[in-house]
Amino acid sequence: MSDMPTDHVGLEVLPFDECLRLLRSVPVGRVGFVYDGEVNVLPVNHAVDGQDVVFQVAYGSKLGAAARQECVAFEVDSYDAEAKTGWSVQVTGTADLVVENADVDRLAALGLHPWATRVDKPFWIRIRPSSVTGRRIRN
Amino acid sequence: MSDMPTDHVGLEVLPFDECLRLLRSVPVGRVGFVYDGEVNVLPVNHAVDGQDVVFQVAYGSKLGAAARQECVAFEVDSYDAEAKTGWSVQVTGTADLVVENADVDRLAALGLHPWATRVDKPFWIRIRPSSVTGRRIRN
Repeated sequence: MSDMPTDHVGLEVLPFDECLRLLRSVPVGRVGFVYDGEVNVLPVNHAVDGQDVVFQVAYGSKLGAAARQECVAFEVDSYDAEAKTGWSVQVTGTADLVVENADVDRLAALGLHPWATRVDKPFWIRIRPSSVTGRRIRN
Repeated sequence: MSDMPTDHVGLEVLPFDECLRLLRSVPVGRVGFVYDGEVNVLPVNHAVDGQDVVFQVAYGSKLGAAARQECVAFEVDSYDAEAKTGWSVQVTGTADLVVENADVDRLAALGLHPWATRVDKPFWIRIRPSSVTGRRIRN
C-alpha cells in the first residue's frame, strides 16, 4: 500500500473502490445529521446497495429525521490500538426514505436488522453519495 | 442491567456515570460537525478530561474547523456482531481550542496520539458537554 498518495497530515488517501470495499466490510456505521439545529451522530447497522448506504430506523426516532435531510454524513472506521493502525471512510450525500415496494422487498432480503431490536414499523433510509472519501493510517 | 429504563424503541437508557465510563473505555470516537455547510463525521483518538472530551488535530485540517463550532457531537460505540449486542454514547456540546499552557501540558501528559501520525503542530480541542446520552441494546 506504500504507493498510495497521502494527504497533508500523512494519511493514505484511499481510492473509491477500496472505500466501497471497506464500507461493506463492517456491520456498523454512524449517521451524522442535523436535527433541531444540533449535530447528531448515531450508530446503525448498515448495508451497501450498489453505491448507496441503506439502513433501517424506527418511526418516530430521532434518526428518522435524517430521512428529510439533503446533506448527511455516514462514517465507518476500524482501529487497532496496539498496532496504531486504522482506516476510516466517510460518505456524504442525500438521505431519502425508501418508498417503492420493490426496493423495500429487495432491501428486506439483505437480512439486515436495525440497531434497536424492538422496532414495530422500521423503515428504510437510503443515502445517495455525493462524495466518498477514505483515509488509512500509514505506519 | 435489566432494571434499566428503556426508550421507545427498546434500547436501555444508560445513566450518566455509565456513559462516562464507556466514553473512557475505547480509544477512538467520532466528531460530528458542520463544515462549509456540510455535516462531517471524522474519527479521532480521544481522552476524557474530567467530563470533557479532548483530542488533537493538525493545523489546517478539516477537523480543525470543529474548534470554531458552538455545537458539535462526539460519539463512541461498540458492537458485537455475533451476539448482536452493543452500546453507544453521544456527547453534544461546545468545542473550544485549548490555549492555556497549563492545560496543554496536562493534556500532553495523557500520552494521547492524534489519529494521523505525521502532524507537525497538533493542537488540542476540548468538547464541553451540554448533554451526554447513551443506549445499550437489550437482548
